[in-house]
Amino acid sequence: MAGSTFGTIFRVTTWGESHGKGIGAVVDGVPAGIPISEEVIQGYLNRRRPGQSRFTTQRKEQDQVRILSGVFEGKTTGTPIALEVRNEDQRSHDYSDIAGYYRPGHADFTFDEKYGFRDYRGGGRSSGRETIGRVAAGAIAEEFLKMLGITILSYSREIGGIRAETFEKDQIERNAFRMPDELAAEKVEAYLKEKMAECDSVGGIVECTVSGLPRGLGEPVFDKLDANLAKAMLSIGAVKGFEMGDGFASAKSCGSVNNDPFINKEGKVAKETNHAGGVLGGMSDGSDLMMRVAIKPTSSISRTQHTVKQDGTPIDVVIKGRHDPIIVPRAVVVVEAMTALVLADAVLMNMTSRADRICECYRRWREEER
Amino acid sequence: MAGSTFGTIFRVTTWGESHGKGIGAVVDGVPAGIPISEEVIQGYLNRRRPGQSRFTTQRKEQDQVRILSGVFEGKTTGTPIALEVRNEDQRSHDYSDIAGYYRPGHADFTFDEKYGFRDYRGGGRSSGRETIGRVAAGAIAEEFLKMLGITILSYSREIGGIRAETFEKDQIERNAFRMPDELAAEKVEAYLKEKMAECDSVGGIVECTVSGLPRGLGEPVFDKLDANLAKAMLSIGAVKGFEMGDGFASAKSCGSVNNDPFINKEGKVAKETNHAGGVLGGMSDGSDLMMRVAIKPTSSISRTQHTVKQDGTPIDVVIKGRHDPIIVPRAVVVVEAMTALVLADAVLMNMTSRADRICECYRRWREEER
Amino acid sequence: MAGSTFGTIFRVTTWGESHGKGIGAVVDGVPAGIPISEEVIQGYLNRRRPGQSRFTTQRKEQDQVRILSGVFEGKTTGTPIALEVRNEDQRSHDYSDIAGYYRPGHADFTFDEKYGFRDYRGGGRSSGRETIGRVAAGAIAEEFLKMLGITILSYSREIGGIRAETFEKDQIERNAFRMPDELAAEKVEAYLKEKMAECDSVGGIVECTVSGLPRGLGEPVFDKLDANLAKAMLSIGAVKGFEMGDGFASAKSCGSVNNDPFINKEGKVAKETNHAGGVLGGMSDGSDLMMRVAIKPTSSISRTQHTVKQDGTPIDVVIKGRHDPIIVPRAVVVVEAMTALVLADAVLMNMTSRADRICECYRRWREEER
Amino acid sequence: MAGSTFGTIFRVTTWGESHGKGIGAVVDGVPAGIPISEEVIQGYLNRRRPGQSRFTTQRKEQDQVRILSGVFEGKTTGTPIALEVRNEDQRSHDYSDIAGYYRPGHADFTFDEKYGFRDYRGGGRSSGRETIGRVAAGAIAEEFLKMLGITILSYSREIGGIRAETFEKDQIERNAFRMPDELAAEKVEAYLKEKMAECDSVGGIVECTVSGLPRGLGEPVFDKLDANLAKAMLSIGAVKGFEMGDGFASAKSCGSVNNDPFINKEGKVAKETNHAGGVLGGMSDGSDLMMRVAIKPTSSISRTQHTVKQDGTPIDVVIKGRHDPIIVPRAVVVVEAMTALVLADAVLMNMTSRADRICECYRRWREEER
Repeated sequence: MAGSTFGTIFRVTTWGESHGKGIGAVVDGVPAGIPISEEVIQGYLNRRRPGQSRFTTQRKEQDQVRILSGVFEGKTTGTPIALEVRNEDQRSHDYSDIAGYYRPGHADFTFDEKYGFRDYRGGGRSSGRETIGRVAAGAIAEEFLKMLGITILSYSREIGGIRAETFEKDQIERNAFRMPDELAAEKVEAYLKEKMAECDSVGGIVECTVSGLPRGLGEPVFDKLDANLAKAMLSIGAVKGFEMGDGFASAKSCGSVNNDPFINKEGKVAKETNHAGGVLGGMSDGSDLMMRVAIKPTSSISRTQHTVKQDGTPIDVVIKGRHDPIIVPRAVVVVEAMTALVLADAVLMNMTSRADRICECYRRWREEER
Repeated sequence: MAGSTFGTIFRVTTWGESHGKGIGAVVDGVPAGIPISEEVIQGYLNRRRPGQSRFTTQRKEQDQVRILSGVFEGKTTGTPIALEVRNEDQRSHDYSDIAGYYRPGHADFTFDEKYGFRDYRGGGRSSGRETIGRVAAGAIAEEFLKMLGITILSYSREIGGIRAETFEKDQIERNAFRMPDELAAEKVEAYLKEKMAECDSVGGIVECTVSGLPRGLGEPVFDKLDANLAKAMLSIGAVKGFEMGDGFASAKSCGSVNNDPFINKEGKVAKETNHAGGVLGGMSDGSDLMMRVAIKPTSSISRTQHTVKQDGTPIDVVIKGRHDPIIVPRAVVVVEAMTALVLADAVLMNMTSRADRICECYRRWREEER
Repeated sequence: MAGSTFGTIFRVTTWGESHGKGIGAVVDGVPAGIPISEEVIQGYLNRRRPGQSRFTTQRKEQDQVRILSGVFEGKTTGTPIALEVRNEDQRSHDYSDIAGYYRPGHADFTFDEKYGFRDYRGGGRSSGRETIGRVAAGAIAEEFLKMLGITILSYSREIGGIRAETFEKDQIERNAFRMPDELAAEKVEAYLKEKMAECDSVGGIVECTVSGLPRGLGEPVFDKLDANLAKAMLSIGAVKGFEMGDGFASAKSCGSVNNDPFINKEGKVAKETNHAGGVLGGMSDGSDLMMRVAIKPTSSISRTQHTVKQDGTPIDVVIKGRHDPIIVPRAVVVVEAMTALVLADAVLMNMTSRADRICECYRRWREEER
Repeated sequence: MAGSTFGTIFRVTTWGESHGKGIGAVVDGVPAGIPISEEVIQGYLNRRRPGQSRFTTQRKEQDQVRILSGVFEGKTTGTPIALEVRNEDQRSHDYSDIAGYYRPGHADFTFDEKYGFRDYRGGGRSSGRETIGRVAAGAIAEEFLKMLGITILSYSREIGGIRAETFEKDQIERNAFRMPDELAAEKVEAYLKEKMAECDSVGGIVECTVSGLPRGLGEPVFDKLDANLAKAMLSIGAVKGFEMGDGFASAKSCGSVNNDPFINKEGKVAKETNHAGGVLGGMSDGSDLMMRVAIKPTSSISRTQHTVKQDGTPIDVVIKGRHDPIIVPRAVVVVEAMTALVLADAVLMNMTSRADRICECYRRWREEER
């Protein structure tokens, strides 16, 4: 499996399986001098940790992160930062029964086909626990972005078809679903209890906005900012769709409506509307980024499903174990982390876009040489 | 601008602006022995060429491709393939007037902000002509995929909100909109005439399916097959959304419905349904790939729009020049090309997934050594 | 610090500082099904471990490796393999005194200039301990190469100007210097005792040969096999030169002598001589690879040296701590590891060079699909 | 052939064969605003052009470069720069005879083994003409470096064993061998005439120095500045060795002699000597870079050589065509170009090493936003 590394300059490489010794990430290309600590990263991890409500898996994990390298006296040194979370509550026996058949909606089958065999304990590399490495690395990216005045806000826009119609930022962390609409959250709770009684699961839509971005982030052709965000989001398990700005709605619109007129806002060029979602030609335009991510219902459900054994024999199965009836609220944190990773990389890449600025930087920096 | 290269092993690097000397691509990592010729590539380019109907730009371009390297006696040699299309109908004067202001929906503003100035002739690097390089390179990828029995089908599912309800493959190339539904195509034509009379433009949705894929293509974490497809699609100008399988609809579904049961089909493991769109855990599962791409309305419209000059002064503008009132039918070809590039790369990457197979290959190949 | 990842498909990312919590590597892109265990990797690490003779640092480290992911039931799974070695004998106080000045021959100064400050405990990231990650990852690469019948042999050709004139393979692991010439080893021992008495250090030349290579490994232009080997070697601290085949001697030769005539050897095309060192046009030609690496004398010496403090004030220093008077014997193991990493990657890249072979592979593999 | 792209941010992709339609390069990641023109690039190409003296191939090529994209009104725009040189004097018939056998010292054999067949016209991709793309791209890199006050000087230190003992910069371009020592050049001329009479060829050593470098260029582990330079040099056909600073001589030295003491030079930290060649721990230390490259004798010689046909039959051959009896003087220009490419990339990478500097840059740049 190549493909465990993400990013061009600010690069994260993740490792680990759900029932191995642990999960981790190595973050390379991090600029020196960013204040970071295990406590700060833990704050991000705690938001994705299981067992926060009755609507997430009851698997007991503290997910304590340890920084093994790259930080000295509270600041990043510029060297690779190794992050590690040990698996505690492994309970392999929960999963031993799934070794012989293919769980619908899971990667068991494709792993067998690609590699010839698989680590059948839990989801192995395709487990939701893989996202621990993303969130831990994303925490460093997000702390860096904060130094630049860039802030990311991620929340559940829709769950089980129930949409947050209002937006109250304070509500987001107040309900189990990370919805900005208290009323919608209540409806979701009722709906979810119903589905849980039916041993079923639901999906939803995560929305993410970014404010405070400088203009010009992203590269105009293949490495468009929105293209890298799309890859980042679809690389998260269970994500099935991505929209930038008006997204699919713009496909029904007209140019006269969809184009965002430029205006002069307090002496700066700005856009009157933001149908584009903050990017033009793949580069940030100074407006807020606005994206949406579609998340499928949790594949693990406790009701009888039809499937086959490795040898093709049909079999009816009931998947045991502790599963999230809805992963959207936890995915909110992963979407935020992947967004931070894409932006931190774009910020660094953009340091090299103009020769005049590069020359001026080195002129100044050389005066500072010892 | 880093970011003009796409792919890990099968790699394309594109170059060129709409009003420079030409547009081109260098395709590296192409296996030796693929039958290819200028005629074959031209066949793909002709499908995206302008002036095919009254509903596309009347810019006159033959878009004649020339192969400058990497092909010998009708076959790829394994060395980089340089492809070139000269710009003929440049008419820079058409565009001289836009040098001073920012066209709504275009990248003029972000280019100025990122690079300090811009090549204001036409869209420069962000012109639709940039896709010539993608289609020419994609042609080589698609010829390679055909050798493996992999076929891609791309078409317009929806234009201006009018959806193709039926699917007749033969219809696709029979109407100006590449729609698989004759009736829908007629409705689109009527609607589009109306919009053109209003000097407006419309968008739509391109659908793309792939059949004949081996299982296991794609890498399980960041380089998921669907993640790379998402990046490929969002890297196309005017694309604002991407869906895999049921996409956003799956966000409203339940696990019991959305999970695709595995079955035994003529002795092989298969899926009873395909809500997932042909990928599980980021790897192809043997079902057809099914994806959708949202395309915004053409930004260039001939009606008065409000915007600002480079110095921020408000101005009302009418964009002259020859524009597509709808780019979806031409985007169909670009979506197909980008899909081919992603798959060719995935096929090559997947050659390295199993040690037993690698050893067996070298054992055989070494017997063939001279 | 971007640049902690090496390789295109078979990729290693290393992390860790000499006096942090540990040293490690994540190896991604490893084919599934390679037999591997902590014991096997430990065998490689033990060869580079300090304290093996009076001529290496007396720092006490067991360098116990732990595999945290990517191996299941004794075989690689295709997922990233996380390897970790904890630092035991840190003795930071040994190094506290060097925080304020710049050790000649070390990277203290350049780290300060590049990052603004540094982790001054030991060499930090530039410590010889960084090579633990390379050797652990190289062990996996070498085990893979052995499955293909490829063997690497690395040894000291010259130390302190004393050259191994004879070559007895068995001798290599019999003396403290890994020299294939017993007599030379004795001379080196005498010379080294003398230099140690003078509180001085010496350098040498490591030679590395590879046999059993298939033909055609390496890519003909920038990613030539010898180019990637050169980078691999110069990326090892203290390495100052690289030669392929006759290397610098060929610069004094003539074409009529330096060209290796092709011959027919038992029905196969072979070369009569091997001045080229096993590569032609950057691709392996079936002859043994033959390369040499120049290693400078250990920078840390216990005699008084002139240098400056961070503020530029001149100061005379005597570097305390436990240093190798000669690192060449341990570098032998690192050279072997880096060679293995380059070759494993080249073997994987080369799986994609011919369309006919790729098509035949997939034809066979698809018949094996479940 | 993957591997036709070099660099991480400042990236060049080359294409073309000796007897195809032309040779070219696409340079991506070039900062906007560098003054460049076909005339400027031609100046660099003319220095490597054949036919400059009786000691180089008499093949007649003007090697006229054309810029096809990425430059507008005399400055780079930040978009990819496509460079193209058409092949004029192809004379394929000169080479038709070599299709059937393997030229000693050439890549004919390895190309056949890797790809199953080859473009047998001339050296194909392994021809010296491939370096045209490197020199054209290197010209842009070198113009960028000049803006930063960084200058590269490359010349022949030794040819056919005859060493330039003195160094007179003005001499370099005054003799056919680019030697800084008039007397040595005369001796080389005499020696070369002798070898040419014997239908033989010779090799030599190119030396390259770089002054005006900021400190801290290069990344401390795998992407050390010297590691990337080593790869760059060994990627040039005919190069067999690389040395940084004292190189192989340092292997015979002692730490007390080889360490460069730090001193205070006019208030700045400097080194008293430069055995290291300008790098410490893989990062530039402010001293001049000093490297040497070993070049083998030209493989094409006009005397009878023993070799085999593709079917293994022994054959005696005399290679016709127009060859350089010595390529070192032309390689001088290629070494300079590759050095420029490595340094331009290192300069860009280094823009991202410190968070404090990045934040200050964006603070300033955002004030400049329109």
